[in-house]
Amino acid sequence: MNEAETIRYHAAQNGRPAELDLLDQTKLPGTLTRLVCTTIDQTYDAIQRLVVRGAPAIGIAAAYGVTLTPVSADANASLSDAQALYRQTIDHLATSRPTAVNLFWALDRMRAIVDGFSGEVSELRKQLATEAIRIHEDDREMCRAIGRNGAPLLADCKRVMTHCNAGSLATSMWGTALAPMYHLHEAGHTLEVFADETRPLLQGARLTAWELHQAGIPVTVCTDSMSGSLMRQGRVDAVIVGADRIAANGDVANKIGTYPLAVLAKYHDIPFYVAAPTNTFDAELESGDLIPIEQRNGDEVSYPCGTDAPRQTPEGVAVVNPAFDVAPAELITALITEKGVIPEPNTEKVLAHLGA
Amino acid sequence: MNEAETIRYHAAQNGRPAELDLLDQTKLPGTLTRLVCTTIDQTYDAIQRLVVRGAPAIGIAAAYGVTLTPVSADANASLSDAQALYRQTIDHLATSRPTAVNLFWALDRMRAIVDGFSGEVSELRKQLATEAIRIHEDDREMCRAIGRNGAPLLADCKRVMTHCNAGSLATSMWGTALAPMYHLHEAGHTLEVFADETRPLLQGARLTAWELHQAGIPVTVCTDSMSGSLMRQGRVDAVIVGADRIAANGDVANKIGTYPLAVLAKYHDIPFYVAAPTNTFDAELESGDLIPIEQRNGDEVSYPCGTDAPRQTPEGVAVVNPAFDVAPAELITALITEKGVIPEPNTEKVLAHLGA
Repeated sequence: MNEAETIRYHAAQNGRPAELDLLDQTKLPGTLTRLVCTTIDQTYDAIQRLVVRGAPAIGIAAAYGVTLTPVSADANASLSDAQALYRQTIDHLATSRPTAVNLFWALDRMRAIVDGFSGEVSELRKQLATEAIRIHEDDREMCRAIGRNGAPLLADCKRVMTHCNAGSLATSMWGTALAPMYHLHEAGHTLEVFADETRPLLQGARLTAWELHQAGIPVTVCTDSMSGSLMRQGRVDAVIVGADRIAANGDVANKIGTYPLAVLAKYHDIPFYVAAPTNTFDAELESGDLIPIEQRNGDEVSYPCGTDAPRQTPEGVAVVNPAFDVAPAELITALITEKGVIPEPNTEKVLAHLGA
Repeated sequence: MNEAETIRYHAAQNGRPAELDLLDQTKLPGTLTRLVCTTIDQTYDAIQRLVVRGAPAIGIAAAYGVTLTPVSADANASLSDAQALYRQTIDHLATSRPTAVNLFWALDRMRAIVDGFSGEVSELRKQLATEAIRIHEDDREMCRAIGRNGAPLLADCKRVMTHCNAGSLATSMWGTALAPMYHLHEAGHTLEVFADETRPLLQGARLTAWELHQAGIPVTVCTDSMSGSLMRQGRVDAVIVGADRIAANGDVANKIGTYPLAVLAKYHDIPFYVAAPTNTFDAELESGDLIPIEQRNGDEVSYPCGTDAPRQTPEGVAVVNPAFDVAPAELITALITEKGVIPEPNTEKVLAHLGA
């Protein structure tokens, strides 16, 4: 068993409750440890504290979380009571984080099972576990396909830059932005990767650097502020990032710092790619301006190494901490999904791609 | 006496050796503590470890450092021996940091005193102390003039952004980039300031936020990666930064992260100002590409809170850590010096300004 697997699930069996077993990403790269959730509250907290993070991964975790709803195992339990409890869990988990749409997409799939079900409660429980496992497996397939579809775009590159973590740790496996790198690496073409450290929570330094290094892909960490001069020096052939939500017009919300990277890539005439499964698209939003942006606690900025280490901003000074920004479609060379590539995305192309 | 004064100096007196008394900026904002240097080695180490930092301040500190040279107090001491010792100190201190040209400028002023001197060693000692104090006082005057010259450019702004620390802590007083803000604040027009935290060493979060807050100027800290979206949201009316070296064509070397800010400001049509005394110019360098860029230890990136706190990059992963980048003149709206303003700088204008 792979200790570093992002998400594992053990369905309820012989009276043992279901378990959602997460790699605790807040502890990487120093400590490889897992957090086992058996309740909704634990799952909610794990999503909110970024024990599990990355748009696809939080969708998967939330789907499994639904199966932890304490519905009665009694053979005579009321189906409508159980359905009400499941819906309550789904509504609650949907409030854990606001930006990544995959969370809502996954919960909607679970809700459809609850709503459409008739029969015994025990059978509903089984069907929900099956659906969550399917969401997990689907993600694995989508990531593989993204890798396959993105690889040709990076095939002529020597050095690529990425931001935050859109790799195995953000998904079931393979990742989104990192999937083409893994694909090429397997095919014998190894890229060198610059991983932006990604303040405030350092997912690039802690997670992307860790998983690429584990995979044998050479990776160099730089601060977010260094990306511009690396581009100017000709040391970056392409930029590729993941996404938390993509609007109908192709605007992309992703980890804070993505937008300046997109502007810098444009200025240096470097291709800027975004890789994400189609469940990251929110066709109901006309443009990225409508995507809700999570504002997180300023302590994440003030205490770069957690509140055990010294505070780095003065007491009484304001701190802003938006978790995401929006890169407009005109800065994006191509979107890469499991279905293919959308070059120079716009509303027409995006809707056609999603409808295909 | 102001405990927060960046640099103090006590000349040798009645057998007591000279003292260079520095605010230890590595400990801010948590701890207000001072480091007293009485030797060249202590001064060298203080400059290299950034106990004192900021281009003008390290020039001043180095000038004072020269006076700590252990020349004999004996009335019959040999002048040529003393001169040789002083030259040795000057050459040594010049190797402490490579990028800020003010260091070399200040040491050249001290060297000119040594080279041009004839008379008793004790008189040379006095003249060197006097020259170092004059360098310090000149800086104070230059910063005041920069504030006066820059204020009209920011007078219509409500919110400005700055990077790293180019304030009192980087100079004798007033600062360079912050001088116009202090000037306007005294005149009753208070700007709101966004201070980029400035990874890896957080001079914006730790120092700029601290000194502006002390002065009663409202300041908000953001990570370097947030500047772009703040600009996109129309929350930044101007950007103003200091400089470590300015080439003849107006290209500016400054703290890493300055270049991407300049690109972002251009993209958003926001004025981008650089404030620095004329001793920051290096007219011998045709362009910024020739400015030597200090590469610092990657541990500054790997350990955001010092090596006592946990490492945040995986063992075995490469880290780059250039301390500066270069913003080309074409991205700079104006240079501001103690002599005036150079709008849309180029070689002709810069040389005319320096010659004036």
